[in-house]
Amino acid sequence: MPAKRYLVTPGPTPVPPEVVAAMSAPMLHHRGPEFQAIADRVRARLGDVLQTAGDVLLFASSGTGAMEAAVVNLCSPGDRVLVASAGRFGERWASIARSYGLDVVHLRYAWGEALIPGEIAARLEEAGGVHAVYVTHSETSTGVVHDVRAIAERVAGSGAFLVVDAVSSLGAVPLETDAWGLDVVVSGSQKALMTPPGLAFSSVSAAAKAASATAGLPRFSLDWGRAGSFGSTPAVSLVMGLDAALELLLGEGLEAAFDRHRRLGRACRAGAKAMGLELFSPDEDRSAVVTAIRVPAGIDGKAIVRSMREHSGVTAGGGQGELAGQIVRIGHIGHISVSDVTAALAALELALAAAGADVERGVAVRAALAAHSDPVRA
Amino acid sequence: MPAKRYLVTPGPTPVPPEVVAAMSAPMLHHRGPEFQAIADRVRARLGDVLQTAGDVLLFASSGTGAMEAAVVNLCSPGDRVLVASAGRFGERWASIARSYGLDVVHLRYAWGEALIPGEIAARLEEAGGVHAVYVTHSETSTGVVHDVRAIAERVAGSGAFLVVDAVSSLGAVPLETDAWGLDVVVSGSQKALMTPPGLAFSSVSAAAKAASATAGLPRFSLDWGRAGSFGSTPAVSLVMGLDAALELLLGEGLEAAFDRHRRLGRACRAGAKAMGLELFSPDEDRSAVVTAIRVPAGIDGKAIVRSMREHSGVTAGGGQGELAGQIVRIGHIGHISVSDVTAALAALELALAAAGADVERGVAVRAALAAHSDPVRA
Repeated sequence: MPAKRYLVTPGPTPVPPEVVAAMSAPMLHHRGPEFQAIADRVRARLGDVLQTAGDVLLFASSGTGAMEAAVVNLCSPGDRVLVASAGRFGERWASIARSYGLDVVHLRYAWGEALIPGEIAARLEEAGGVHAVYVTHSETSTGVVHDVRAIAERVAGSGAFLVVDAVSSLGAVPLETDAWGLDVVVSGSQKALMTPPGLAFSSVSAAAKAASATAGLPRFSLDWGRAGSFGSTPAVSLVMGLDAALELLLGEGLEAAFDRHRRLGRACRAGAKAMGLELFSPDEDRSAVVTAIRVPAGIDGKAIVRSMREHSGVTAGGGQGELAGQIVRIGHIGHISVSDVTAALAALELALAAAGADVERGVAVRAALAAHSDPVRA
Repeated sequence: MPAKRYLVTPGPTPVPPEVVAAMSAPMLHHRGPEFQAIADRVRARLGDVLQTAGDVLLFASSGTGAMEAAVVNLCSPGDRVLVASAGRFGERWASIARSYGLDVVHLRYAWGEALIPGEIAARLEEAGGVHAVYVTHSETSTGVVHDVRAIAERVAGSGAFLVVDAVSSLGAVPLETDAWGLDVVVSGSQKALMTPPGLAFSSVSAAAKAASATAGLPRFSLDWGRAGSFGSTPAVSLVMGLDAALELLLGEGLEAAFDRHRRLGRACRAGAKAMGLELFSPDEDRSAVVTAIRVPAGIDGKAIVRSMREHSGVTAGGGQGELAGQIVRIGHIGHISVSDVTAALAALELALAAAGADVERGVAVRAALAAHSDPVRA
């Protein structure tokens, strides 16, 4: 009998049975009326989740592909762009922009810090002539959810486009594309939207769309116009799955979904603290996507992640890049209940105890359940 | 009761139940050992199908993305490339290369013609300094399968890389990457490989891989090195599905699969001819991917495709680009049996008769079945 598995990484996330069923329907031709109707509905539903009346484009790509599209469709060779980063995915913006020879002004915070809106505004003014600002909403590598609303308020009026990576945040924490004035928001199927990876999408404001007409960087399959018209074969089954997932999410209601994720984040942090562990993620309600937990000194975090998988069937995330071996990341977005979070905490407790760490036994799950039930933030 | 549907387009193609089941398994983390083992097996199995001992890279993209990767990883700005085309997908190579500012020598044949290897060699010599030659194996827009083996023999020794689009041919008609000396072969999941769209792949020869180290065109998500290391989240469920599809295909055996497709092609052409229709595809065994059939003068091909779908539940392809309204394309690759082909022929006969075309009634299906059964080419 194969072990029962629990997937609590911050993406890919577990796929609900309704989404599996939708993806198992007979294949449709992408140019036929049945698929066109589904794609139109998915774009409309994504607009509701993104809270935008603007265009939504679908890409057969990872989230990174849609990020790259937000660079190559908006910029021309030599353009100056500002990247504000505090982790792996923020730094990816800088890597993409440099790959295309852009003049990158990089406001680089240490991994785990929060972007400071006033400093972004100051660097924007100091640099001058910045064409676009690239930031991350949820920094999946550290657990920090940045205050994009405040960043947008400080970037507004500068003349620079504001582009946001919301790959792991969309559907889990509040994001209001139009109300906050975000020009481009990029996200993907495989996080809070509960669909397998391989489908990404992007909102594009009217101003950004107009700018793409004269943007000079080379592109083909990631061209926004090409994506908008399905110039290449779309990821049909994933679009069908996302349609079902969005029906679930919008049926629940965005506010209810945000509250659900908020409570899961509280539960995970409360459990980790109860057993005496130090949080790497900020202990605040906004950190509702993934909880990063420091592994006690002298313990190898990679071995803990492996032990959780091998002994408890729980797949959590380890540390990436410079945090490799130092943290364990428990994702709680999408089709995740508090029982998955307590299973992950129990597995973590077991793995740490087996490795000789000094953890308080038998308290994490109760603390997590208590924090999850409490309607008011403690 | 919704109508029963038959999908006979040349991609996406019907997905076998074994592939649906594999894609319905619980989601796996792309960095965990279970998925890594599946990805390794898929690359090995693709190597068997591609008949190469070289690297095979997976992309979360449409086939076009992997085509673009074969341009941006191989070329530098201003490089001269030769594109030989005779249809929509051949011309796509030229469009991609021009998007990146390459010096494109375009040997353009009319849609429906076959590439002439000797003329490619002559143009290659005449142009001089050609860095890479881009051709199509199966031209899905016209039904022509080009003689890539003969082209490779004429390009060999020129010093130019040879890149082949085998998106709709791989697994349906013979292609021997290493034996024929093909540097890069690009294909996708959604044609003869019976998996939903959104996953593409590419073989890369040692020489092509070495050239990519100094190729100067900008790229990020389509970078071969990045694809090889899953730098971005791969399309996990599609990789799991492709694994099951490749097990089916290799279990059948490549020669048996080629024979099966050869007989389906014969059946489709025999049926069309029997009812008095003119073939647009060449009437030869190599045309085993998609049969393009001319719509009789005065009849609107788009209306015929629509009528087949609405009255018989059969989704066939229409003409693309300059062939819009002039042909009907019946695909017979992947999870297609002769019963699908006869259903398509019967639907076509019904639609044409209803539109007032002068077609011979009641003979197509019998002719198709006879051609399918005949072990020797008539």
